[in-house]
Amino acid sequence: MPPAPADATAQAPSDRVRLRRKRERGSHDRARIDAILDEALIAHLGIADEHGQPFVIPTLHARRGDVVYVHGSSASRTLRVLRDGAPACLTVSLLDGLVLARASMHHSANYRSAMLLGHARLVENEREKLAALEAIVEHVVPGRWSEAREPTANELKATAVLALPIDEASAKVRTGPPQDDEEDYALPVWAGVIPIASQAAKPVPDPRMAAGTPMPPGVARYARARITA
Amino acid sequence: MPPAPADATAQAPSDRVRLRRKRERGSHDRARIDAILDEALIAHLGIADEHGQPFVIPTLHARRGDVVYVHGSSASRTLRVLRDGAPACLTVSLLDGLVLARASMHHSANYRSAMLLGHARLVENEREKLAALEAIVEHVVPGRWSEAREPTANELKATAVLALPIDEASAKVRTGPPQDDEEDYALPVWAGVIPIASQAAKPVPDPRMAAGTPMPPGVARYARARITA
Repeated sequence: MPPAPADATAQAPSDRVRLRRKRERGSHDRARIDAILDEALIAHLGIADEHGQPFVIPTLHARRGDVVYVHGSSASRTLRVLRDGAPACLTVSLLDGLVLARASMHHSANYRSAMLLGHARLVENEREKLAALEAIVEHVVPGRWSEAREPTANELKATAVLALPIDEASAKVRTGPPQDDEEDYALPVWAGVIPIASQAAKPVPDPRMAAGTPMPPGVARYARARITA
Repeated sequence: MPPAPADATAQAPSDRVRLRRKRERGSHDRARIDAILDEALIAHLGIADEHGQPFVIPTLHARRGDVVYVHGSSASRTLRVLRDGAPACLTVSLLDGLVLARASMHHSANYRSAMLLGHARLVENEREKLAALEAIVEHVVPGRWSEAREPTANELKATAVLALPIDEASAKVRTGPPQDDEEDYALPVWAGVIPIASQAAKPVPDPRMAAGTPMPPGVARYARARITA
């Protein structure tokens, strides 16, 4: 398998994130990693307990500069484990297509994924905490933070925010048609890609909302931008 | 927070998967867990190395009865760690919507997720291994296994299949409009849900395929069924 192409903007990878399998799909390029983190609506956060049992938890997230933030209840098990400095892994994955090869064993997926390894840090500085929560809400829908009621002191106390640095990180990307064995290209089997994308539909107003409450342009624009069909 | 509703078909949960936070969203119901595993196109597999460092890897998967199968190169680090009997976690998540509340801290997501904990077993029986690979290809596109060239002995040797039992498992589901604090419902803030779904687009034929190779009905049907807009 050929090594990944040289990449001038890449960081030197640690041994733990150095790409092993399918290295031609991998990258340590920060711009690529950031773009994947920013596009993904959810992340999967991995932690392990004292017995080495991993837990993988889906969560909202947001990137701010060199840090990815996640939040949760101050009382949750995940957040309790992580604030003690346990190692964590955060992975985001964008599924772009189903790859149908001529050979059953060459079926695959087109995807873009980013994986961060590191020790999570509990965000205690009030200003950073508020900025992180703003980033998470803005990541859900850009422009939303200034429309919604801001957090109270009690809400902030009940919420823990964790920061994971983007320093040990890698991206993997697969694109394009199936890669079959040369002799299989002659087979009369349909081959190709079924593109897959995450799409938004028309916003559904809360039934308890007063009639006539205008939909903010950001919400309408966001939903429209993601409806491509 | 109210406990989860009693559920006649639920298994008795182990302490590790007993639902702690937001228990009203949780379930140990097998039919619900199976439905989520079957609908999700990818899973996130969590393992931890000997230092307790978790790794979360996106992968194709398939359920067959009481087992979820994943596969990979026989030489991969993940598969090597897991075949030694290390504990694993497999999580699948379906994002159904972005929940826009009146209060910033009540923003959330509608989702369905399932989490399995257990020790992965390396599938050594040839018949089970083939059935597992068939299930994974059929999970990508139903009907595909019989269209594609079947695996050779060498391909089978180069591929490891792992089985994760569905015994310690839980599902979490959030649906419906935002849940705001009672006094916030009077705020003149637009609130509601932006539905999100994973959608297929028109299949893209492999440029190297002979012109006129017919698209199998299963591929066309699959893509059509997932294009709802």
